[in-house]
Amino acid sequence: MKPKFKPVEGAIVAAQGFRAGGVFCDIKRLGTGKGSEKGRKRDLTLIVSDVPSAVAGMFTTNQICAAPVKVCVSRTSKGVAQAIVVNSGNANACTGRQGMKDALAMTALTEETLGLGDGHALVGSTGRIGVVLPMDCVRAGIAAAARVLGSTPKHATHAAEAIMTSDTRPKQIAVEFRLGGRVVRLGGMCKGAGMIQPGMSPNGARPATAPQGLHATMLCFLTTDASIDAGLLQGALQEAVAHSFNCITVDGDMSTNDTVLVLANGLAGNRKITTRRNPGYPVFQAALQHVCLALARMIVRDGEGVHRVVTVRVTGAKSFTDADAAARAVANSSLVKTSWHGGDPNWGRIIDALGYSAATIVEDQVDIGYSAVGSKRILWSLRRGQPTKATFAALCKAAAPAEFELHIRLNLGDHGAVMYAADLTEEYVEFNKGNVTDPSTLGG
Amino acid sequence: MKPKFKPVEGAIVAAQGFRAGGVFCDIKRLGTGKGSEKGRKRDLTLIVSDVPSAVAGMFTTNQICAAPVKVCVSRTSKGVAQAIVVNSGNANACTGRQGMKDALAMTALTEETLGLGDGHALVGSTGRIGVVLPMDCVRAGIAAAARVLGSTPKHATHAAEAIMTSDTRPKQIAVEFRLGGRVVRLGGMCKGAGMIQPGMSPNGARPATAPQGLHATMLCFLTTDASIDAGLLQGALQEAVAHSFNCITVDGDMSTNDTVLVLANGLAGNRKITTRRNPGYPVFQAALQHVCLALARMIVRDGEGVHRVVTVRVTGAKSFTDADAAARAVANSSLVKTSWHGGDPNWGRIIDALGYSAATIVEDQVDIGYSAVGSKRILWSLRRGQPTKATFAALCKAAAPAEFELHIRLNLGDHGAVMYAADLTEEYVEFNKGNVTDPSTLGG
Repeated sequence: MKPKFKPVEGAIVAAQGFRAGGVFCDIKRLGTGKGSEKGRKRDLTLIVSDVPSAVAGMFTTNQICAAPVKVCVSRTSKGVAQAIVVNSGNANACTGRQGMKDALAMTALTEETLGLGDGHALVGSTGRIGVVLPMDCVRAGIAAAARVLGSTPKHATHAAEAIMTSDTRPKQIAVEFRLGGRVVRLGGMCKGAGMIQPGMSPNGARPATAPQGLHATMLCFLTTDASIDAGLLQGALQEAVAHSFNCITVDGDMSTNDTVLVLANGLAGNRKITTRRNPGYPVFQAALQHVCLALARMIVRDGEGVHRVVTVRVTGAKSFTDADAAARAVANSSLVKTSWHGGDPNWGRIIDALGYSAATIVEDQVDIGYSAVGSKRILWSLRRGQPTKATFAALCKAAAPAEFELHIRLNLGDHGAVMYAADLTEEYVEFNKGNVTDPSTLGG
Repeated sequence: MKPKFKPVEGAIVAAQGFRAGGVFCDIKRLGTGKGSEKGRKRDLTLIVSDVPSAVAGMFTTNQICAAPVKVCVSRTSKGVAQAIVVNSGNANACTGRQGMKDALAMTALTEETLGLGDGHALVGSTGRIGVVLPMDCVRAGIAAAARVLGSTPKHATHAAEAIMTSDTRPKQIAVEFRLGGRVVRLGGMCKGAGMIQPGMSPNGARPATAPQGLHATMLCFLTTDASIDAGLLQGALQEAVAHSFNCITVDGDMSTNDTVLVLANGLAGNRKITTRRNPGYPVFQAALQHVCLALARMIVRDGEGVHRVVTVRVTGAKSFTDADAAARAVANSSLVKTSWHGGDPNWGRIIDALGYSAATIVEDQVDIGYSAVGSKRILWSLRRGQPTKATFAALCKAAAPAEFELHIRLNLGDHGAVMYAADLTEEYVEFNKGNVTDPSTLGG
């Protein structure tokens, strides 16, 4: 039986013993050069646990990796943390030694302000690359956020707003479930929008089997009152991210700053999970994956200029690497993505992308079909490489909804992979080309 | 001293003993469903040599490969051919056994009509994937083209027009040079526009060292009256394509139909080139590469929706594979391409793409700069990972021309690679999304 996860309010502060706050400190205003009060947007978030927590993280595998990522890689490896400070409007990436000094200053100031142990604060940044952080703003922001910390849904929403860049809405969720007889909560928030195709690993190192073309600035912060060993928390997160954030793409570009962090403070009082054999472990892992996937899908839906979200399901591949390569080639093909935008069920472009992917493909084995989200009723447009009798009108109808699933069966083996992908629209181009005469329009 | 290639008129029929013709046979009209005479576009080309010629070819490495490509792979391996028949409006790809029957029927009819030897005709197709060729049109077209064959520039232009799909203009060139005391001519034509990032090999097989993300429907046909052994012609073409068509990208999608064919009929009367040690070989190879590069650049300039063409020059990589991977990652990044469209000299997006490429990159070693086409005066925006003092206004000016060069020095080794790339514009999206209520707007 699939475990049940009951939705609850409060997102990042839903679990016991967590407080958060999101404030204005003018990093975004400076970043954009806009002077008016009206344009002011929240840009600094603090998340804090009442007690030291187990921590785990996943980070971009981009070789150009921002200072805050380097700090978190080092600190999460120790397994304990108590707070996270995050700014938006500036990625603190490609900022050299000053960038590292600033990232460490952010954590030190957070620790000092909140009275935490040395090295117990983590840090995240997102925004434009290559600009040094305005530390006066950041310092004022940390002080302000510390003054407004709280545990209401409003606090969570402010915190979620303050990590946004080109996102149009805050993205958050929390669930409640039973673990070892106790009620446990797990919640979180994330941001995305552009530079979205994460490929994260626990330490930023590239796995030998890294999917080709890993690539987002996405940040995700998770909190839970479950009691779990930090090593197991890392294992659970790694699996959850592999099936959620590492399976999404908006534009195929992997960011320098992708980060997922989870804090588990143990205040729910369940017997601590210290082994995978604990029956609570798979329940906890499933909850974590459920929350990560829900947040990951929110990122795709709110991607820059996105009109349609398509779940690309590849099955029947010779290996997982093949399945993943096939799904990514389709999910990142400019021609496939523009056809989705146009509502055109163009299987020619799909099979073309499969053919140039690194996956082994046999033309007269390929099936391509469409279904509603989560439905098993598939309308096939291609079977064993041959067009079916499905009418163009029927296929257009299947490719018309704002969300649908694309099913690709290679019929060569037993392996599968899924990508959550977006269409490519004029708005994406319009947004990202910006306007050099108004640098406030230029993105990260 | 670099050999000199004098531009001459006549393109595909500039060399002695070649004739061509391009006619209307309504494949495009059927393909689009448009009924009016006004919309009629040339869609069938014949190219024929007066005598059997040495032949060489390069073909898509897409695993989904069209029937005409399969026919040409097999025939060029024999080293002799005399004619090429090409249709546009229909790619004859993913058309199964019928597709192969139709491709062979096209060559048989051409041989019969022109009185050629068995297997001496080659075939090319470009257009929508997955639709069976309208063979009645094709038959009428071959007969009509055979009646209008000729050797004037007008014949060349009609032939070049009849292979166009979304191209806005015919692309052709011819040069004259001296070889072994004789005047030799080499000319050709090509088409491109979308699905453009070719990765061709002599037999469609993927080389072990295939650049990642090889990917056009591009067709190119070349003719020369030079006398050269077919094996050497193949070697010269392979090298020329590696430095021209395999270095271009419009949208990163590799087609099922990419084909380059060259016929060398020997009528110039130079002593036949039968070894690489013949001093004429490097001259001939350079001429071939010159013509291929000129045609390849025309494809990028006339790519779907393209406003800006950028030459991405990577140097200082640890290996050629690294240099190529770095150049392709930058040339295919949606965010880099939209910033080019906007005239935004955004080095953050460039270094981000370098970081997620398969190439080894060290952040504090990377240089990024801009120059005019062919100029050695580079304006650096980044040196050793640090922003230079170049002003934003100066960098914007460098990124403003319709064509410019982007210089990336990795400073880790001695290897380099070049990509000829295009920006990503609203027009590309607009064009490729099409309109399902008017299938004539839907592309290949």
